[in-house]
Amino acid sequence: MSQHVFFHEELQLDSAQLNLPQDEAFHLAKVLRLKVGDAIAIINGGGISAEARIERIAMHGRSCEASCEIISARQIPPPCPALRLYVAPPKGRNMDLLLKEATELGVSRITPIICKYSVSKPDEGKEGWRQHLIVACKQSRNPWLPRIDAPISFEAVLEQGKELNFLGAVPRGGAREAMPDLEYARKNGAALWIGPEGGFSQEEENALLSKNAVPITVGNWILRVETAVPALLGFMHAILK
Amino acid sequence: MSQHVFFHEELQLDSAQLNLPQDEAFHLAKVLRLKVGDAIAIINGGGISAEARIERIAMHGRSCEASCEIISARQIPPPCPALRLYVAPPKGRNMDLLLKEATELGVSRITPIICKYSVSKPDEGKEGWRQHLIVACKQSRNPWLPRIDAPISFEAVLEQGKELNFLGAVPRGGAREAMPDLEYARKNGAALWIGPEGGFSQEEENALLSKNAVPITVGNWILRVETAVPALLGFMHAILK
Repeated sequence: MSQHVFFHEELQLDSAQLNLPQDEAFHLAKVLRLKVGDAIAIINGGGISAEARIERIAMHGRSCEASCEIISARQIPPPCPALRLYVAPPKGRNMDLLLKEATELGVSRITPIICKYSVSKPDEGKEGWRQHLIVACKQSRNPWLPRIDAPISFEAVLEQGKELNFLGAVPRGGAREAMPDLEYARKNGAALWIGPEGGFSQEEENALLSKNAVPITVGNWILRVETAVPALLGFMHAILK
Repeated sequence: MSQHVFFHEELQLDSAQLNLPQDEAFHLAKVLRLKVGDAIAIINGGGISAEARIERIAMHGRSCEASCEIISARQIPPPCPALRLYVAPPKGRNMDLLLKEATELGVSRITPIICKYSVSKPDEGKEGWRQHLIVACKQSRNPWLPRIDAPISFEAVLEQGKELNFLGAVPRGGAREAMPDLEYARKNGAALWIGPEGGFSQEEENALLSKNAVPITVGNWILRVETAVPALLGFMHAILK
């Protein structure tokens, strides 16, 4: 468990030998200063996790190569039920934090949504975001890299999401205390919707409710988005168990 | 709801007029640039929340005074059940983040514990910590300032905690899936124990289990302490509802 984890998309169940990507090799040799013969773990982001041993390290100036022998590899089943996160991105580092939290808590897909009251309206950032997801997978030993979508407007994404049993996090929705169809959600997954700091607009809230989103709240106070994501995911884990 | 919230320990239910503390007055006048006549909210950290109006602002160089008329004040009941958090502090800014998360989620008391595998062993920091709690109370509009204890060793604090129905977050404790006595916890409150990144030691885990702590886990992967706190509090909110 104290072993270092590396990420390599090309890892397969029958891989016998792998050259780590350049940045992973650099991290292995120059940052962690691992040596030939050391044991490491490798994940591929698609649920495969392997035990491996470093076979060869070569350094040419600032560039590194590292190859390893795969000792054993196994396929870890995807998290069940699948949890999907629709979230209005908070600014800068708080979005990075949120991505880590969602990965540690096993979310399968993250869709950044642009809402009426969104302050942060990133139109890209995807590559930087993916990097945070990979780091979180390695740290938490989660072999399933969450899929991350390009940011999309609330209206556009609501059209697509018909098949899901939404669980909406609607701060003002305290009136309705119905429970979602838990049996359905356990089988088919559930989606968590989290609005921006200013909340969903009344129209957005109504649109979610009309799609059978069930308002869930945790505690009595206003949560920052970075707190709401892990707290509501923890809440969902409890009710879907 | 978009109103600015200030903190003043001396606010009482029958207060008619208050001078804000120096730092709060500075924030009001110089940072937020509020004006005489503007409406504000004041909390006292002991459950009292008031609507107020700025009556007078005086600035002398960098020093500010602000007094306000209290329009109405009410006592908000304490969160029930009371949730208590025993946590091994993560390093630096992550502890600050954790304190904010716990405040937003309505924790009543936080006890930093020093465990066998603790990396961060603060012997003080209390004043800085309290400041983060106050900021979080204002942001989340939680009028109940969590009590924060001085850091204490795991062994010493376990001796004291006899009356509580512990809910321990024990990563390796997957084997035991018993549920805590929820009725008792709803009435008497519950405590959440979260160990350092390296986990509780086997002895610490056994000590918690011998005190009837129930292991709870959220998801399948390793959580950083800053994720574990909100996720497990969200989990507890769900099962104690």
